[in-house]
Amino acid sequence: MFDPIKRARDSYARQNFLRFLGTELESLEPGRCTITLAIRPELTQQHGFAHAGVITTLADTAAGYAAYSTMPENASVLTVEFKVNLIKPAMGQALRAEANTIKAGRTLSVVEANVFAIDGGNEALAARMQATMMCLAGKADDPSISQRQETERKN
Amino acid sequence: MFDPIKRARDSYARQNFLRFLGTELESLEPGRCTITLAIRPELTQQHGFAHAGVITTLADTAAGYAAYSTMPENASVLTVEFKVNLIKPAMGQALRAEANTIKAGRTLSVVEANVFAIDGGNEALAARMQATMMCLAGKADDPSISQRQETERKN
Amino acid sequence: MFDPIKRARDSYARQNFLRFLGTELESLEPGRCTITLAIRPELTQQHGFAHAGVITTLADTAAGYAAYSTMPENASVLTVEFKVNLIKPAMGQALRAEANTIKAGRTLSVVEANVFAIDGGNEALAARMQATMMCLAGKADDPSISQRQETERKN
Amino acid sequence: MFDPIKRARDSYARQNFLRFLGTELESLEPGRCTITLAIRPELTQQHGFAHAGVITTLADTAAGYAAYSTMPENASVLTVEFKVNLIKPAMGQALRAEANTIKAGRTLSVVEANVFAIDGGNEALAARMQATMMCLAGKADDPSISQRQETERKN
Repeated sequence: MFDPIKRARDSYARQNFLRFLGTELESLEPGRCTITLAIRPELTQQHGFAHAGVITTLADTAAGYAAYSTMPENASVLTVEFKVNLIKPAMGQALRAEANTIKAGRTLSVVEANVFAIDGGNEALAARMQATMMCLAGKADDPSISQRQETERKN
Repeated sequence: MFDPIKRARDSYARQNFLRFLGTELESLEPGRCTITLAIRPELTQQHGFAHAGVITTLADTAAGYAAYSTMPENASVLTVEFKVNLIKPAMGQALRAEANTIKAGRTLSVVEANVFAIDGGNEALAARMQATMMCLAGKADDPSISQRQETERKN
Repeated sequence: MFDPIKRARDSYARQNFLRFLGTELESLEPGRCTITLAIRPELTQQHGFAHAGVITTLADTAAGYAAYSTMPENASVLTVEFKVNLIKPAMGQALRAEANTIKAGRTLSVVEANVFAIDGGNEALAARMQATMMCLAGKADDPSISQRQETERKN
Repeated sequence: MFDPIKRARDSYARQNFLRFLGTELESLEPGRCTITLAIRPELTQQHGFAHAGVITTLADTAAGYAAYSTMPENASVLTVEFKVNLIKPAMGQALRAEANTIKAGRTLSVVEANVFAIDGGNEALAARMQATMMCLAGKADDPSISQRQETERKN
């Protein structure tokens, strides 16, 4: 039986860049996703804060899987665009991105994601994203399946 | 004598995350900046394309230094927010982000950045960013200087 | 004594375009603002829905006054930028924009605004805005005061 | 024979809100559109400048028709989202929005629009928009045609 949560987790596991950064998929349920990342020195910018690119990666990933978890079988998710406000310099031990699907549409979904910086017992809102995600119907996320689909389409 | 280009290059060199990714500052002149990055397997997402977070990091960095190169002495640059449209999956050997300052204001600057994917002899527009950068007057980018400023302020 | 709510209401009353559209300032409290507008035929686009420009005007106005209500005396508010997702075609009797300040900063504030379309007893989220507002310190919103400030500055 | 320019002009003529504001469709060619508007007192905000909602309406309209002019027969255009930076207070006699399609995709298009304020012989960039437009295939823009399509679908 089709399990959109398992599909999203499998897709997450195929993302090399997330492994390179060291992110963790903390939770995933229909329309919602939380991703965390320990801040290491190599993830910082010139003032020692977490880099905007790292923060955006987390927010985009959480937003993408929040939307993907609401999409039908045999579909992929694609980021159309996002807008990020960097609200406070992110320092501390870790980042946590929480995404929440505002509208799950047939083709397009709108997702909000908030990224928090965790410093000791304190949490501060570091960034907020408003994103548009697209459902690519008929295109499996798993490359082995999508190649078979492509072959079948040609035959 | 104050050299805003040297200051921006020094700031760029202090960014751990850019070293971690392997970016190169290809060119920098007043209001314009180009950053490149070789695409490696660890920079990709689930479909094998360059990750949106990588693309955004490049665009944000180029946009930030394009704006910073127009700012007065003794100031830092801060990303206020950006919006990115992902236009085409980015594949090939390398990415190149080209930023161009649309408006260099006293406090806020507006910058456009385009990210191209270079695949053999072909180039394709992979993403476009519209960003707002802020000039933090009286706060040096170099931490050794800004700490001295902080100490002087307290005395 | 300085009353930021009264100041914002006075500023709202000086906006010709809002009078032209027929908006109403439903509520205003520190960090929050709600604006409504009855949908009339002249406010619609080619398919008979409320025009995106009308929706954006409402969201921007609510967002601006939500932020302005948190700003100190003798300051003006300026929209730096906003991003709007149009989530559902807006039809019915009225629109209501609700803005909520996410971060009230010294110079910049981040505000979220949701625009609902009210159709009979139903409400539907028509649009969501994420906006950046700027505090212009030392510049009164009231033109009679700001002109006097300008004259004093020159003398 | 299908003429996408005529179709866009007909759609523009059906927009009540644009007539209410008094906009003019200055030029329209594949992928590009220019809209102008004389600034009148009722289009201004509290400081006497053209209202951000007016500026956005112009930019969104130009962007929408720039994209629509590249879309196939029997399709409508829909604004998915836009982001606008307000670069300079807009004053003078008129506004002119120039939109240019960056990417014309099958489903989604990315469009840039610049809004200029014309003051005597001077022009100043007042705002820049980056927008995402959607092609609704099989849904005519003209309501008389789309109703017939709807009826045929049901039969």
